[in-house]
Amino acid sequence: MTDNTAQPDTPLSTAMAQVNPFRVMAVMQRAAELEAQGKKIVHMEVGEPDFVTADPIITAAKLALDAGQTSYTQAPGIPALREAIARHYQLRNNVEIDPQRILVTPGASAGLMLLAHLLVSPGAGILMADPAYPCVRNFVHLVHGIPQLLPVSAQSNFQPTLDQVAANCKASTSGLWLASPSNPTGTIVDREELHKFSAFTAERGLHLLVDEIYHGLHYVDELASIVEVTDKAFLVNSFSKYFGMTGWRLGWIVVPANYIDKARVLAQNLYISAPTIAQHAAIAALDEATRPELERRREAFRQRRDYLQTALQELGFTLPPSVDGAFYIYAGIEHFSDNAEDFCAQMLNEHGVAITPGTDFGDYRAQQFVRFAFTTSMDNLELGIARLKKALA
Amino acid sequence: MTDNTAQPDTPLSTAMAQVNPFRVMAVMQRAAELEAQGKKIVHMEVGEPDFVTADPIITAAKLALDAGQTSYTQAPGIPALREAIARHYQLRNNVEIDPQRILVTPGASAGLMLLAHLLVSPGAGILMADPAYPCVRNFVHLVHGIPQLLPVSAQSNFQPTLDQVAANCKASTSGLWLASPSNPTGTIVDREELHKFSAFTAERGLHLLVDEIYHGLHYVDELASIVEVTDKAFLVNSFSKYFGMTGWRLGWIVVPANYIDKARVLAQNLYISAPTIAQHAAIAALDEATRPELERRREAFRQRRDYLQTALQELGFTLPPSVDGAFYIYAGIEHFSDNAEDFCAQMLNEHGVAITPGTDFGDYRAQQFVRFAFTTSMDNLELGIARLKKALA
Repeated sequence: MTDNTAQPDTPLSTAMAQVNPFRVMAVMQRAAELEAQGKKIVHMEVGEPDFVTADPIITAAKLALDAGQTSYTQAPGIPALREAIARHYQLRNNVEIDPQRILVTPGASAGLMLLAHLLVSPGAGILMADPAYPCVRNFVHLVHGIPQLLPVSAQSNFQPTLDQVAANCKASTSGLWLASPSNPTGTIVDREELHKFSAFTAERGLHLLVDEIYHGLHYVDELASIVEVTDKAFLVNSFSKYFGMTGWRLGWIVVPANYIDKARVLAQNLYISAPTIAQHAAIAALDEATRPELERRREAFRQRRDYLQTALQELGFTLPPSVDGAFYIYAGIEHFSDNAEDFCAQMLNEHGVAITPGTDFGDYRAQQFVRFAFTTSMDNLELGIARLKKALA
Repeated sequence: MTDNTAQPDTPLSTAMAQVNPFRVMAVMQRAAELEAQGKKIVHMEVGEPDFVTADPIITAAKLALDAGQTSYTQAPGIPALREAIARHYQLRNNVEIDPQRILVTPGASAGLMLLAHLLVSPGAGILMADPAYPCVRNFVHLVHGIPQLLPVSAQSNFQPTLDQVAANCKASTSGLWLASPSNPTGTIVDREELHKFSAFTAERGLHLLVDEIYHGLHYVDELASIVEVTDKAFLVNSFSKYFGMTGWRLGWIVVPANYIDKARVLAQNLYISAPTIAQHAAIAALDEATRPELERRREAFRQRRDYLQTALQELGFTLPPSVDGAFYIYAGIEHFSDNAEDFCAQMLNEHGVAITPGTDFGDYRAQQFVRFAFTTSMDNLELGIARLKKALA
């Protein structure tokens, strides 16, 4: 029997003290145990689309396999894919991006980590929202930077404000990291705000990084990308969410021209190249012929959002002013509990509804929030709401 | 026109000062330019098998695509693959490994980087051979550790000795990282030496990490894995080399039982999970039915090694006492030049032979060595030798 409870024999890196497991993992494990007992669980904890990758992408992968595309690629990615990403920005955002500025990465995680290594020195402060995607905080810890958490609330639609950023900017601050749409809050940063943040960071000599991993999955007519606003920012995106390619592990970053060479050196070192078959498949993901299917899926997410937003409010959860992107609703539970972890455990164990406590995403009032993911069918969402209604009656 | 020569606007991380581009990249780029001019280049610089991934692996990937295996997996990898890796150690090394101790990684690069984050604190020294795979040095720099380079030469078959390790072990030293077979030298660490290193690191409270990325591609009857010697060491392996799956980006690590939980937390953060299709395909790579083809490929590498070893010695290159693994020969050029970079440039530009200067791999006498990779056909190797013979006559 493997004993994994004993203490390590040699010291862990000092960074490890700051890096904690995600509570959602415990939720998922407990849900699996209950399912093994024959219980039906409504999964509203999972941060992954519930669709299999679209057929044209699968077909492109098979063609690449038949063509023997099994070798390493250039570290920044195959030129055809980088050009397809550049065309995507031309079509969707009406902006010209030199494909040289694009690096294909093995998932957005690798893109974020590459940028952490590139930009964050030990002791340097990185301004970011609280709550935020927990890995982002951990990535900064792993390079010995200091996450400078900006508490956000419904008042600012769960996004930092310029005043807040300015007030928290210290001599040691080196960057501002935003996410739009945000995980866990589903809220966006609009064009006007992006302009303000861009001007501020340029003036203060800070780098600006925008996580656009959920771009495409937005429910407003138009969502600005940071590349429309400035060519001096760092952008992270992914094929996982809108393009439905989670398991393929593929994303991209856009870097300012004068960081290309250093970013490529890091890519060579950190991962040699992104998965080759996935790169070929992703060209099909960006093809206009695939878009109708991706848009149908977006529409399904929008319908679920509409339903869940209304239903949760009716049940007494407190919602952000507008949930405009991603597939999450960050809901206040102050009418029910002041302990999100206990609340989530109770909903799962007693009512078969899996949701994620706010404490996975930050410190600020985190015990008063839970994250609902609408990555399951309308039928399941309705079942989940019915169960919550009974639980909270 | 993108100007990527301008200075960054905001500071790079302090780690970036230590991380340099690989010279082999310039060699490969120059080779491509010459080929674009219609010149025939003999590629002996490439660190990648020249075989397309074997058919049974391709077939397994297609089956996984048909089955819609496109979601994230568990962070440590799918259980069936971890069990197959455990069986591999049982069959090949006659040792039982709990699959819990195995984490599937998106390439050995990600495995090495995970272990760097797990084990290396700022200022901590990591003992490693000079020359070695350059990324290893860079990974230590990226977490602000200090590579403590151990100069190795033909005298110790280009591997560190216990005396050397003991003499260089300081209070700040936290680990010893070995590679067997080694890139760039092709030399191995035998079982007796592994036992000595294991005992020494246990006694001194150092962690022991062994890069076994080229295991399987060895030309001795038996090559010991560190897991046969101790269950307290960290092992890194890859599906890229022996299994011929470079572009799939898949590897694995084995960690001591009391580090499993922390390693999994890092996996969740750093990459969520390894590529799913590749994981399913890799089960076929470990299947006994695939082994004959992989062994045929190993035999082809052995024949090339035999030929190249003899031919290079006849030309006046100085070779290690025994080239027992990987697909590299680290050859001394002291009879021809005292500047490996100039020598490589000359061989490429004037004679159409691409090889890598020793300066990619370390500091110690690096200008007196070049690395030959036998990742090209016998016909090409013979052409390369004929050209070198003419060049050096």
